[in-house]
Amino acid sequence: MQHLNVGLIGGGFMGKAHSLAYAAMPMFFWPAPALPVRHTIAEATDELAAEAARRFGFERSTSDWRSVVNDPDIHVVDIATPNHLHAEIAIAAAQAGKHIISEKPLARTAQEAKQMYEAVTAAGVVNMVAFNYRRTPAIALAKKFIEEGAIGRILSFRGTYLQDWSANPDSPLSWRFQKSIAGSGALGDIATHVIDIARYLVGEFGSVNAMMQTWIPERPLQTGGADSLGTARGGQGPRGAVDVDDQVMTMIRFENGAIGSVEATRNGYGRNNYITFEIHGTEGSLVFNYERRDELQVCFASDGDDRRGFRTIYTGPAHPNGGALWPIPALGIGYGETKIIEAHDFFSAIANGTEVRPNFADGYKTALIDDAIVQSAETGEWVEVPGIE
Amino acid sequence: MQHLNVGLIGGGFMGKAHSLAYAAMPMFFWPAPALPVRHTIAEATDELAAEAARRFGFERSTSDWRSVVNDPDIHVVDIATPNHLHAEIAIAAAQAGKHIISEKPLARTAQEAKQMYEAVTAAGVVNMVAFNYRRTPAIALAKKFIEEGAIGRILSFRGTYLQDWSANPDSPLSWRFQKSIAGSGALGDIATHVIDIARYLVGEFGSVNAMMQTWIPERPLQTGGADSLGTARGGQGPRGAVDVDDQVMTMIRFENGAIGSVEATRNGYGRNNYITFEIHGTEGSLVFNYERRDELQVCFASDGDDRRGFRTIYTGPAHPNGGALWPIPALGIGYGETKIIEAHDFFSAIANGTEVRPNFADGYKTALIDDAIVQSAETGEWVEVPGIE
Amino acid sequence: MQHLNVGLIGGGFMGKAHSLAYAAMPMFFWPAPALPVRHTIAEATDELAAEAARRFGFERSTSDWRSVVNDPDIHVVDIATPNHLHAEIAIAAAQAGKHIISEKPLARTAQEAKQMYEAVTAAGVVNMVAFNYRRTPAIALAKKFIEEGAIGRILSFRGTYLQDWSANPDSPLSWRFQKSIAGSGALGDIATHVIDIARYLVGEFGSVNAMMQTWIPERPLQTGGADSLGTARGGQGPRGAVDVDDQVMTMIRFENGAIGSVEATRNGYGRNNYITFEIHGTEGSLVFNYERRDELQVCFASDGDDRRGFRTIYTGPAHPNGGALWPIPALGIGYGETKIIEAHDFFSAIANGTEVRPNFADGYKTALIDDAIVQSAETGEWVEVPGIE
Amino acid sequence: MQHLNVGLIGGGFMGKAHSLAYAAMPMFFWPAPALPVRHTIAEATDELAAEAARRFGFERSTSDWRSVVNDPDIHVVDIATPNHLHAEIAIAAAQAGKHIISEKPLARTAQEAKQMYEAVTAAGVVNMVAFNYRRTPAIALAKKFIEEGAIGRILSFRGTYLQDWSANPDSPLSWRFQKSIAGSGALGDIATHVIDIARYLVGEFGSVNAMMQTWIPERPLQTGGADSLGTARGGQGPRGAVDVDDQVMTMIRFENGAIGSVEATRNGYGRNNYITFEIHGTEGSLVFNYERRDELQVCFASDGDDRRGFRTIYTGPAHPNGGALWPIPALGIGYGETKIIEAHDFFSAIANGTEVRPNFADGYKTALIDDAIVQSAETGEWVEVPGIE
Repeated sequence: MQHLNVGLIGGGFMGKAHSLAYAAMPMFFWPAPALPVRHTIAEATDELAAEAARRFGFERSTSDWRSVVNDPDIHVVDIATPNHLHAEIAIAAAQAGKHIISEKPLARTAQEAKQMYEAVTAAGVVNMVAFNYRRTPAIALAKKFIEEGAIGRILSFRGTYLQDWSANPDSPLSWRFQKSIAGSGALGDIATHVIDIARYLVGEFGSVNAMMQTWIPERPLQTGGADSLGTARGGQGPRGAVDVDDQVMTMIRFENGAIGSVEATRNGYGRNNYITFEIHGTEGSLVFNYERRDELQVCFASDGDDRRGFRTIYTGPAHPNGGALWPIPALGIGYGETKIIEAHDFFSAIANGTEVRPNFADGYKTALIDDAIVQSAETGEWVEVPGIE
Repeated sequence: MQHLNVGLIGGGFMGKAHSLAYAAMPMFFWPAPALPVRHTIAEATDELAAEAARRFGFERSTSDWRSVVNDPDIHVVDIATPNHLHAEIAIAAAQAGKHIISEKPLARTAQEAKQMYEAVTAAGVVNMVAFNYRRTPAIALAKKFIEEGAIGRILSFRGTYLQDWSANPDSPLSWRFQKSIAGSGALGDIATHVIDIARYLVGEFGSVNAMMQTWIPERPLQTGGADSLGTARGGQGPRGAVDVDDQVMTMIRFENGAIGSVEATRNGYGRNNYITFEIHGTEGSLVFNYERRDELQVCFASDGDDRRGFRTIYTGPAHPNGGALWPIPALGIGYGETKIIEAHDFFSAIANGTEVRPNFADGYKTALIDDAIVQSAETGEWVEVPGIE
Repeated sequence: MQHLNVGLIGGGFMGKAHSLAYAAMPMFFWPAPALPVRHTIAEATDELAAEAARRFGFERSTSDWRSVVNDPDIHVVDIATPNHLHAEIAIAAAQAGKHIISEKPLARTAQEAKQMYEAVTAAGVVNMVAFNYRRTPAIALAKKFIEEGAIGRILSFRGTYLQDWSANPDSPLSWRFQKSIAGSGALGDIATHVIDIARYLVGEFGSVNAMMQTWIPERPLQTGGADSLGTARGGQGPRGAVDVDDQVMTMIRFENGAIGSVEATRNGYGRNNYITFEIHGTEGSLVFNYERRDELQVCFASDGDDRRGFRTIYTGPAHPNGGALWPIPALGIGYGETKIIEAHDFFSAIANGTEVRPNFADGYKTALIDDAIVQSAETGEWVEVPGIE
Repeated sequence: MQHLNVGLIGGGFMGKAHSLAYAAMPMFFWPAPALPVRHTIAEATDELAAEAARRFGFERSTSDWRSVVNDPDIHVVDIATPNHLHAEIAIAAAQAGKHIISEKPLARTAQEAKQMYEAVTAAGVVNMVAFNYRRTPAIALAKKFIEEGAIGRILSFRGTYLQDWSANPDSPLSWRFQKSIAGSGALGDIATHVIDIARYLVGEFGSVNAMMQTWIPERPLQTGGADSLGTARGGQGPRGAVDVDDQVMTMIRFENGAIGSVEATRNGYGRNNYITFEIHGTEGSLVFNYERRDELQVCFASDGDDRRGFRTIYTGPAHPNGGALWPIPALGIGYGETKIIEAHDFFSAIANGTEVRPNFADGYKTALIDDAIVQSAETGEWVEVPGIE
């Protein structure tokens, strides 16, 4: 069994999630396609890096991400940094011939994403963007039903990603509120996950028509670089400007004739990680809510009139990846499992010399959609989403 | 206690619902503001009218709605016909000095609605449009919370009205699929209810940006005039063209700065009468689903971090109109109760010489919104909703 | 169409519900099996009776229930009084040859119920006990699935009836807390509904093993005879003893080998009218919750492994009595509809000279079960439920 | 930071879960109380053991569990075998001075459990029984609310554990259906989890009154030792007898005066890992369903009449262990997280020289309850649950 050395750049929330995935993947998927070796982790300082290595089980640590990218022992570069560093790291890693997985959104703009896409394409390395939610078994099951034709031709899609962790005006000005680092706000941070799911399940976007709003124009300056999500509250000190969107709403015309909408906000009290979709087809419907992620709801038109209704299916061994996960449905899929499956599929692609989706092309395409949404929100017009060359 | 004679035009689904309301209103609201007397019912033929009178408890019947409108004994004209007859009947009734309640949508177009609005205004009669759903106790409770400031300033609204009774291409071509009779499809038939709720809870519409789709271009011709909803299936005979929308989706800019969306379809398998809204405010959120209409969900930002979440409130005696309805929550509000409350509020306005909402001005405003939606769907542009001069 | 004159004894909550049913039944079920005429209503005083007549649409009123029972113009006696009057009225009505519908529980004790049962049997009149909940369309649908064998042989039943209207120690000492009037507490008031449902769906009780508890031993004395449910609160005045159960829990062995349990409480904060059951069979399961009464959940073992799960069916035209109710599912079944269907079935039996269920034999059987539960709670032993000789 | 060498006996479903916990615990809880070292894993054969070591990241492997127990380098023995081996391994490990965590139920009988309890007590080692579900953050939050008095004095508890993985008569005769290995069926396998939760949240059991049923008397013999859960189906070959219970139902009298019930079945179609409880107190209620394990529902009596209802709280950083888990609620707690928290608490106890709960005393007590349930099911009598010496 092949061992592949991973260099992980970033030891925050995402660094933790990816480290968990590397440790756990072979426990779930056995025989594993390859064994991830937690070789080196990079953080902002030597001290942070050393501590991250102990915590996340890496053999070495560094404060210089370039040394990771250029280390000939490293096979895989994992980019788990804030968004503004994705492009530089990824391009360097591609040039060094490394396989790359990058956190989402792929980049701050489509222009950046294009460069990354071109770099990995030129290098011929396996590349992946970490839209992990499409790997939730219930979403993979939705995909299977759609591909089987079980709900017919898709008519419409309605997706949301609603959170409330920044609804309080006293929640700090993390990098996620700064355009120079994040690129955009709710759009890039969370709406992109739903856009990825829409592309996965429905198909390619034709055009969009959008609104974007910033509800809270300034927030308490944050001390320390950590990403303060959740219940963190800033102090009484100075505040800085938010220059990204708190909420985005877009209508969609898909290329295949379906219509849809996506809405994302980080100001929806009572919603936590409310990634939902509802899909209506000519032969049935699908409904999903990540807050109850073990469940997929499906309604088949072909069921008898007296017994038709949404079936609540709990994913388990009978469903995608079910044999690898837990032996009974509802033992419980958590965030970790989406990352474990992601790691499996990424390492399978490396081991087998195949492609994995969503890759940088997908990340680039999503960035093109993001740019079109921004443009539409500014102009009030429908904006066509360009293709990739 | 004042007795008010009602002339009801139309003995179908809506005639049944209104008759129930007149019989039951005093049983619930006692002392009643006035006693509705089921005086005369009109239907298409003398035979149908006579049968409707027996069934719905009316003293007299006729096939000539004009005789009802002109009967000096009649105090109230109730219009429960297909949409194309609303204007002519309402204008005649207004000219005859009758108080008027009309089923929704008020008219096929804003132009028609304007004439109706002007007629009742000129006549000085009490007028109401039967957007009954806003009288669901849980929605009235949402209104109360909003007016108290319990969820702060409203940021966004998302409403749906999803049904599946016509998702099957073999469901018959009822009048609801014919523009000459209905004016529009899902827009006028169901989206208007959500638009009414949005105006009631959030405020006036500024502009809209919409899509409309007809998914099923033709349906089996229907024999007989009845309104075939539900599980009816047409035969193998000839089909006629559908010239209204099956689905409508609109983004909204409210005058007060809130943003929103409304989506309606009659092709969403598994959804039955899925009138929902989610409202995010600066201090909390509200969520409602008519399919579980005894419940309102509310999240208050001010609740402690360890105990914040949507409260599922079952409406009952502690809530709007609760004293009049049933003595324990979840005994169960049905469709009838929304009509009983509607009748109560209409007769109160007549008895007290006051106004009732939603009135023909509201119906007219909603028709203006509908027209703007149609225009936007054709042009792809944001369209301003005009005010009522 | 036959007209049948109704004499209604009692103008409280139940009087209201039954009056609604009589007025509305022909509107829903047409042609009606017979037309109920609201002939006479009896209340405690002439003034109360006269007001009830105006409110509920009765032609006459009286403070003497015996005059109703003995009025030769009356065809039907409807007993909507507190429990302690059921037996005397019913026996007199039977002796006068009236058809009888009585509110539940049929009587305070099995001994009383036996006398009532014998009286109606001797008189040969149509008799019914108003366990209305089994007429909820979703429960009727459960019955249909069971009879079709769709869930196979029943293994187990778990039912609850949870409320919270008396969880507050300051809620007044209504007659429902007094054994001399009510017979028992949560057992007779609410558990009997679930017992009726269990008998309807699963079959006859063999033996029971029970616990009963009184959590709040005294409550504020109530002034006025009204039945204070809901959010009523007693004052600071004197309190009286509660001598009935607040909560009851029983295990069940059914005659057909199934096992089960029933639990009822009026002290379960957050539960309102939480009548639920879950039934497991060898080929599937059924789940119901009256608080969401438009819905029945059913899981079929025969569905494929990848698409098995509870189907949430919204009852409508495709389901029992659906053609008579509302034309689309989830327009909404309320408490009233259960009473309207009940009235229909009762008047059908009278018109057709047939039997209707649940009748006094069922009410008597339920009283025997109640007595066995009380005995078991006292002795800690399993108690056999006797049959009706 | 202390390193503690773990010897894990058993490489099946539980071996996987525990291995995951050891790898992931420091990633979540940092600084970790101690670092678990995956030292040696034991399985039935050398080959199985070697493969398990590679898969689960252990340094060594063996087919001789005694060599693990007696290895002086091992600090912790983790027993993840079928039930019949728990006692022998645990007693040997205790005698060797190892800290011990054992899967549940602790033993097949109270007699076995007593010996284990006495062995660890005599040895003075840290001991834990892996009733992991009580570590679900939502259940820990329920505990917090109860301890704060937020729901007042507890009146009643109703718990279930419903599954359907063996509802099909063709699911194989795994060891879980054999009394000689498992001790009991649904009782020991799943009901014990709910009993543990009941003891954790409500208090000590006083007496029980139970029913037990075996619905499927024989099942296909299984080839291979694996634990076939989920959708596995046996072949057409010979069948063997099931000598344990498929379903158990018990009423409970708690020592503190509360009453309750527990029901468990593996034959409830549509239920997967349906661990639920509902607790009514004098000041509020709690409701939990593990299938939606991120959520706890709580109703506070002190909320205003117009805004009282179950709050659906999604556990996250503001709740027990939230700081260590994921930074936003509903990112998702899976089965793994319950085991990670369990490992943390176990290693904390070792590092700090403290006790951890549930320990072998708890496991023994639960076994005493199990024995009382079995006895009650045989005799039909209430059975007192004895205390520990």
